[in-house]
Parts: sequence; structure tokens; C-alpha cells
Amino acid sequence: MKAVIILSGGLDSTTLLYYMLRREHSIKAMSFNYGQRHVKELDYAKKVCKKLGVEHEVVDIRNIGKLISNSSLMGKGKIPEGHYQAESMKSTVVPNRNMIMLSIAIGWAENMKYEAVAIANHSGDHAIYPDCTPKFIELLDMAANVGTYQGINIYAPFTDINKNDVAMLGLGMGIDYDKDSWTCYKGLEVACGKCGSCTERKEALDYAKNKLSKTNS
Amino acid sequence: MKAVIILSGGLDSTTLLYYMLRREHSIKAMSFNYGQRHVKELDYAKKVCKKLGVEHEVVDIRNIGKLISNSSLMGKGKIPEGHYQAESMKSTVVPNRNMIMLSIAIGWAENMKYEAVAIANHSGDHAIYPDCTPKFIELLDMAANVGTYQGINIYAPFTDINKNDVAMLGLGMGIDYDKDSWTCYKGLEVACGKCGSCTERKEALDYAKNKLSKTNS
Repeated sequence: MKAVIILSGGLDSTTLLYYMLRREHSIKAMSFNYGQRHVKELDYAKKVCKKLGVEHEVVDIRNIGKLISNSSLMGKGKIPEGHYQAESMKSTVVPNRNMIMLSIAIGWAENMKYEAVAIANHSGDHAIYPDCTPKFIELLDMAANVGTYQGINIYAPFTDINKNDVAMLGLGMGIDYDKDSWTCYKGLEVACGKCGSCTERKEALDYAKNKLSKTNS
Repeated sequence: MKAVIILSGGLDSTTLLYYMLRREHSIKAMSFNYGQRHVKELDYAKKVCKKLGVEHEVVDIRNIGKLISNSSLMGKGKIPEGHYQAESMKSTVVPNRNMIMLSIAIGWAENMKYEAVAIANHSGDHAIYPDCTPKFIELLDMAANVGTYQGINIYAPFTDINKNDVAMLGLGMGIDYDKDSWTCYKGLEVACGKCGSCTERKEALDYAKNKLSKTNS
């Protein structure tokens, strides 16, 4: 499969990148600068693409970001701490972000006569991000399919598994997440360890490492 | 209804703008500079919004345009002449343009707590633009609905009528298309009168004027 992968530089999309390369898909990666506080994640996206020899396009959509900037991820208010299920985490929702990123990636894929666009949404995202749900992905997949000459598909293999499973998969493939990915929403020098994104990352990696340690004992 | 209308500055979306204002919808307009040759259309969009007192946002997405630029509308090759049904008109297709524009407008609408995004695709577009078909619009409407907290809808009232009907509607509302809209794909000082877009515009306006002249006789 020839596919464009949407790569944030975080744990999930980095895992998907490795996963698709393992399966010998032909891939180009696309990342977005929409004015996020944690723009640092893009450095990690660049680094991992360079390491893996994947062509990488960073699209500057900060002028779109300005129009949809009522999100704590974009400098409005404080980044909440804790779990994605919490009501306060809604402040991290960036309006229609996934559709915007997918639509641009679909255009790029169509232009190159590629077949698919890959995205690493997982089941833990569903609670607060409406554009990460199975229904949304299914509908956008159908829309992309009828709206392009190539009949582009959305490839979202993690939709029905959770972040623990994604981390298991990644550690199984030997990914060094400290080197290859960035998660913290605050985007400071060192990850804060407390924001929703840090919390979920740490729990998922702890879960996976714990499971793996049992396989070795 | 509070809605964002995608306004190209051409006949169809200008008609939709007038139509929605007549129905007392609360509207903001959004136009896109994607690197089109006929960027002149944006001057008409600005002018008509100013005249009608509609807030207007022009979004510069030329860096996205560069990634999807295998279209004669964006300087690659010659603008074809004749009808939209002709095979040569496929060169005017800009990959996934409608989904890209709609997704950005949906994000803006969601951010302002608006209810809908309006687009002026009509049945004459279906032949060559896959992202103007009823099926595409229906699927994207459903995706926007589940993908946003506002449950945004796509309002595309011209999907099942043709350009002749749109022109009839516009002349009925007293629109002065020469002053209020620009259609020619070539974007020169004066409309060429031969490109697909000019051809269809002229035929639609001739049709409508002819019909109207009969009502007066």
C-alpha cells in the first residue's frame, strides 16, 4: 500500500509509522504546525523520519490554527492534568483538527496517486475527541473514497485498541520512545509528567513494560 | 441558522450568499487563496461581502496548494475550453479541494459555536468533480455531525439543481452578476468567454434571461 501517514511525533503515530514500515508499506509522512504549544513534537517527527529514511512534509497551517484557537493546546488557558476521561480535558480539543489534517493529507495522496492516508487514533481518544471515534473515521473514509479519483481510503488500524496495546506493539517492535517521540502538551525542555498526554503515555508504557517483564521472568 | 458560507466569488456561491441572507440566516463568509490562477475571484468575494455587510475571512492556504498543484487551475498546463462534461476538463480538478475547504470552515464554525457550513455545489459539477456529488456531501455532512461537539451540518441546497436553475434564482433575486461575481478560470483583465467556467456561466445566464424575458412578454 502507498500511504501518507499523519505523524504528530507522539507515541501513537510513531508506533504506526514503525508498524507500517514493518509491513513494507510505501510511506510518506506529513506533520502539521497549527500553532500548538508543544511544537517540539515536530522535531521528534523530523528526527524519526530522517532515521527511518521516510520523506517528511511539515505543513504550516498556523493561519488556520488562529481561526480555531479556543484550545488550551494553543495557548488559551492552562493545560489540564490527569486523564482524558476528565471533563477538564475538553479544553484540549482543537475544533475539527483531524478532519483538517486528513483532508490535506488526502489531497496530497490523491495528487501523488497514493491509495491511503493513515492516522493513529486509538480507543482511548474517543471519550473526548469526537473526531477520533470509529464512526467519524468510518464516515470520513467513505467520503474520501467517493470524493477522489483514486478512491483514497483512511487506514486507522488502532481505532479499536487502546494506548496500552499500542505501547505493547511498539515495545514489541523495539521502539525507543524516549528518543523517537514527544508527548507532553506543555512542550517545555523536559516532559511535565502530569498533563493528560504525559499521564496516559506513562501509564501505557508502564503497563507494557510490566507485561513484557513477565514474559522474560 | 448560524452558518459559515464558502464563497469563491463565482456565480454559484454568490447566489447562495444572497439566498441565505434573504432567508435571514446569520452568516460569515470564508474564501481561500490556494494559489489559483483566477485569484481575482477573491476581489469579487471581498467586494460583495463589503456591500452586503457580511464578515469575510480569506484564508491563505497556498502552502497546501503547492502540495496538490497538478491542476491547470494552478498554472500547470493550459486551461481547457468547452463543457464540464468533457474529458479535458478533468485537468481543472484540484485534489480534494472541497473537503479541505469544508474542513477548515467546519473548524471555524465549531470554534464560534455556529451550526452549519454552506457550500454552493450544484448538479452540473458532478460530472467531473467527485467532491461535488450528493454522496460526497451527504457523507461529509454526517462526518462533520459526529466529529464536532456542535454537531455541525453541511448546507448544500443546490446539490440537486443545475446552474441554469441557480442563475434563475439569482436573477430572480436581482443579483447583478457582472458587478458581484467573477467566474473565468484564466483570471485575466476581461473574462475569456471560452473556458469551461465561462461557457457554463454564459449558458446559464442566457437560459435564465431568456426564460425571464418570456415572463415579461
